[in-house]
Amino acid sequence: MTKVMAVNAGSSTLKWQLFDMPSETRIAGGMIDRLGQENARFIAEYGDGQRFEQQEPITTHELAAAKILTRLKDLGIVAHLEEIEGVGHRVVAGGEIFKSSTRVTPQVTDEIKALEEYAPLHNPIEAYYIGVFEELLPHATQVAVFDTSFFSTLAPEDYLYSVDLNYYHDYKARKYGAHGTSHRYVAQRAAELMGQPKDLKLITLHLGSGASISAIENGQAVDTSMGFTPLAGITMSTRSGDIDPSLIPFLMSHLGLTDVQDLIDILNKKSGLLGLSGLSADMRDLEAVEATNARAKLALDVFVNRVVKYVGAYVARLNGVDGLVFTAGVGENGKELRQHVCERLAAFGVKIDPERNNVRGKERLISTDDSKVKVYVIPTNEELMIARDTFALHENDAEKQA
Amino acid sequence: MTKVMAVNAGSSTLKWQLFDMPSETRIAGGMIDRLGQENARFIAEYGDGQRFEQQEPITTHELAAAKILTRLKDLGIVAHLEEIEGVGHRVVAGGEIFKSSTRVTPQVTDEIKALEEYAPLHNPIEAYYIGVFEELLPHATQVAVFDTSFFSTLAPEDYLYSVDLNYYHDYKARKYGAHGTSHRYVAQRAAELMGQPKDLKLITLHLGSGASISAIENGQAVDTSMGFTPLAGITMSTRSGDIDPSLIPFLMSHLGLTDVQDLIDILNKKSGLLGLSGLSADMRDLEAVEATNARAKLALDVFVNRVVKYVGAYVARLNGVDGLVFTAGVGENGKELRQHVCERLAAFGVKIDPERNNVRGKERLISTDDSKVKVYVIPTNEELMIARDTFALHENDAEKQA
Repeated sequence: MTKVMAVNAGSSTLKWQLFDMPSETRIAGGMIDRLGQENARFIAEYGDGQRFEQQEPITTHELAAAKILTRLKDLGIVAHLEEIEGVGHRVVAGGEIFKSSTRVTPQVTDEIKALEEYAPLHNPIEAYYIGVFEELLPHATQVAVFDTSFFSTLAPEDYLYSVDLNYYHDYKARKYGAHGTSHRYVAQRAAELMGQPKDLKLITLHLGSGASISAIENGQAVDTSMGFTPLAGITMSTRSGDIDPSLIPFLMSHLGLTDVQDLIDILNKKSGLLGLSGLSADMRDLEAVEATNARAKLALDVFVNRVVKYVGAYVARLNGVDGLVFTAGVGENGKELRQHVCERLAAFGVKIDPERNNVRGKERLISTDDSKVKVYVIPTNEELMIARDTFALHENDAEKQA
Repeated sequence: MTKVMAVNAGSSTLKWQLFDMPSETRIAGGMIDRLGQENARFIAEYGDGQRFEQQEPITTHELAAAKILTRLKDLGIVAHLEEIEGVGHRVVAGGEIFKSSTRVTPQVTDEIKALEEYAPLHNPIEAYYIGVFEELLPHATQVAVFDTSFFSTLAPEDYLYSVDLNYYHDYKARKYGAHGTSHRYVAQRAAELMGQPKDLKLITLHLGSGASISAIENGQAVDTSMGFTPLAGITMSTRSGDIDPSLIPFLMSHLGLTDVQDLIDILNKKSGLLGLSGLSADMRDLEAVEATNARAKLALDVFVNRVVKYVGAYVARLNGVDGLVFTAGVGENGKELRQHVCERLAAFGVKIDPERNNVRGKERLISTDDSKVKVYVIPTNEELMIARDTFALHENDAEKQA
């Protein structure tokens, strides 16, 4: 019995879960939000539905991490901190360096920091938290789990942009993708449910507020809709996904902007469902009013349309498809969305069963028995995937020492 | 017997063809290039393989147009200029105003000029030539034929970007497409060859130095790969096609550029096959060395891969496909390219016959008899399409006067 913690750190939130491995039982989980502020909020869920919540000033990252560990003892979740034998850290950008989850060393931490340019809001803070947890839990195996590493198997013709090849050689301008841990988790689970057939071709749809679609063959990623950054691909809650690059100078001129980054910020934060609907970035809000609000309906129509086209592109890329997997908030809960998407994929032999599709947030096969393509809802669990990778590397270390 | 001229004007070239209508016989054709320079070149082909070529100073657009008309008489191609009853002008940008080919009036010319923002290199010069030909051939019906109008049937969920909807309302930022006259021509021809079936779903691949792919249902365009401008979509000779918008500030910073338009110029002129290969923008050059030059092969692989994915996206968009049509330089002549693309579409029931595919620049069915999807090579003929539209509007005028 080994306790492993999965840590997902942002600039103002710190999420964590504690697993018992290899049983994969979740022992506890929680988050700190409004981190850095006087009214930060500490939440922990544990045991048999127990919950602890408290508002308190948590002004530094050191304090946030220490607070979680202290509370784990105070709440009786662990008796000694030494019980936590591994800590897995989500890291957004692994660049071309990290092709799989990696045991942390000082060099690894430096490299994560050095990849800052590819995820300026994430990598520096994640590297910082790795250091904090190393100080607080010096005995534990620290592991970095990268959002991008699942896509290290992409072929050059999929990860390269059609620009001067020197931009790739000199600046590493290429497709990296994102949500890799989620796509990897649901693809593994789908393969299990399908009996691990050979030459399995899957398309996984991670549809949350960020959204991406991946093409996966024999467990290896072949393509994914996010690109150099998570801005590319399908319509998202507030992100535009793909646009004609020429729109950028055109819109800058009309909006009176002189800094291109201001327009990129608009494409990241004020576009997507929010920009189209003028109403909300949350698909549930749009579905609630689509019968009477034309812009809400339009935003939903655009979203479905982009999803359908990316799935088609990936059926072509894979030259076939055996299974589709819906996951993340919208994918797990949006039954209308799933129905609309699948109806428009009938030509590929996709046929969903309305009764089976009447499910929210639970693992289920939703295609009919005679559907050529199996369609699943599989709730994602990036934290468990982080814990698995961490546990595996921890066991590996233990074996070496033995 | 009516003579109709099709005019395709650029800033330094003026191409023209003269048709006999309704027989659609090409009577003559030619071009002026290096227009504006002392060593401009005038070429005309006519009659039974006759050819006239001369270098001479042609310094103004008025002179260029007058020169063509004078030579038509001098070479005995027409006896009187009054024989030319219609002139059809290719116009790049029709915006949302021109949903079909349109008889020229002063208002139409003004509107073409006013759309300058959407095609700064094309619309002003095209509007200018319309005026020149109106003066030189005052009796003729002048018609504007728009590259974009074929795409006026796109639905909002296909032509809108996932950005603030006000950018569409206020600035008309949307997908317009390009090459519409070519896609329309080959789609009409394919429908004829297939016996005009109902609910015909076609994907047309215009693969020239500019390249675009369209989804067409019952003769109406449903989607197309070019976007707000011809920069978007698949890899082209020198254009990048789709990229992650975030690459723009990233590359500007690394290249030391401060004007976003400089990067857009790079994406238009130094990217695509040229940028990837570092060798040539011409696919033939790359095919000639791909066995020994890894970058040439890579550029070709990226190109094929992008084409395959767009076709898949459009099979999904159409929820099926009955026919694929290859056209334009690479589409008509690149048999290896066609083979590579079609092999990767086997999952959709595409099967080409290597013998039939061994064709260059000629109309032919290249799929096997048992292929679920018919695949054609159809040489495009935008000039004939312009002449047809011009003749139709001319006849319409004549009927009204009768």
